Amino acid sequence: MNILFTRRSVRSFTDEAVSEAQVEQLLKAAMQAPSARNQQCWEFIVVTKKDDLVKLSQTHSGAKPIENAPVCIIVLGNKERMVMPDRWEQDLGAVTQNILLQATELGLGSVWCGIAPAEDRMDLVKNMYGLNDNLLVYCTIAIGHPKNSDALKFVDRYDSSRVTYVK
Amino acid sequence: MNILFTRRSVRSFTDEAVSEAQVEQLLKAAMQAPSARNQQCWEFIVVTKKDDLVKLSQTHSGAKPIENAPVCIIVLGNKERMVMPDRWEQDLGAVTQNILLQATELGLGSVWCGIAPAEDRMDLVKNMYGLNDNLLVYCTIAIGHPKNSDALKFVDRYDSSRVTYVK
Repeated sequence: MNILFTRRSVRSFTDEAVSEAQVEQLLKAAMQAPSARNQQCWEFIVVTKKDDLVKLSQTHSGAKPIENAPVCIIVLGNKERMVMPDRWEQDLGAVTQNILLQATELGLGSVWCGIAPAEDRMDLVKNMYGLNDNLLVYCTIAIGHPKNSDALKFVDRYDSSRVTYVK
Repeated sequence: MNILFTRRSVRSFTDEAVSEAQVEQLLKAAMQAPSARNQQCWEFIVVTKKDDLVKLSQTHSGAKPIENAPVCIIVLGNKERMVMPDRWEQDLGAVTQNILLQATELGLGSVWCGIAPAEDRMDLVKNMYGLNDNLLVYCTIAIGHPKNSDALKFVDRYDSSRVTYVK
């Protein structure tokens, strides 16, 4: 069973650090994602500073797991690189999924905490880092070693009623 | 090296069919994707009918590879299932990426052909199948056996200048 089937949203982490090599592997996977006309409009902020993790966990209720995660990756879209601006959210969905899947490959847990297109949430993170107007905050991802040893287990979500065949 | 690193956009296919078991595996992977508040707003149309593949390949220039693919999966968002309607494009980006990655796992080639949010493109596919207004056409994916034997090879896209660390 491959990583597509064992990835799950993990919200509780141990105190163990995620190594720099592991973080780099997550970012390498992120940048292998496809994008509209190959625009690759992504940028990343990797946060391990405790004060900032606490602040990021307070952006909205779904971001709470960041508080006790050893690392948070903030995914950004750079407007200057957008060839197809109306596709950036789709592109960064694939990028984010690649990070979650590579985390699974490394035995790490992760959870996607949505930010865009909610402007209030986007502005909170933008202002934390004094980002210029070209950088759009897409999402934050909490990453760490799962507290529960069976956190990355397969749960079948297949529902054949969602599929129509045209032969 | 895992599937995140060997997935590439493949646009030329052999005549060999994609089996029903393979298609089902692609759809199973699709439905394992995360989604905002777990809304799982996805639906799928699997097209193997030759006339329809030709029509789908004509929706826009990027959809041309569908013409000679043995199968096309149309990814749809169902408005009735959307708990967070402003996240459906992000969610289905992860779903689409899972299909592309599972295709890679099976040795199949695939390419994501964008549709939403361009209304003219969405309407072309909507009208082909007489879809009701709740179903939003997200993208079409051409899938088949790659014509080139080295189609699924790693090309390094990592760019460390896209990353900022906050320690």
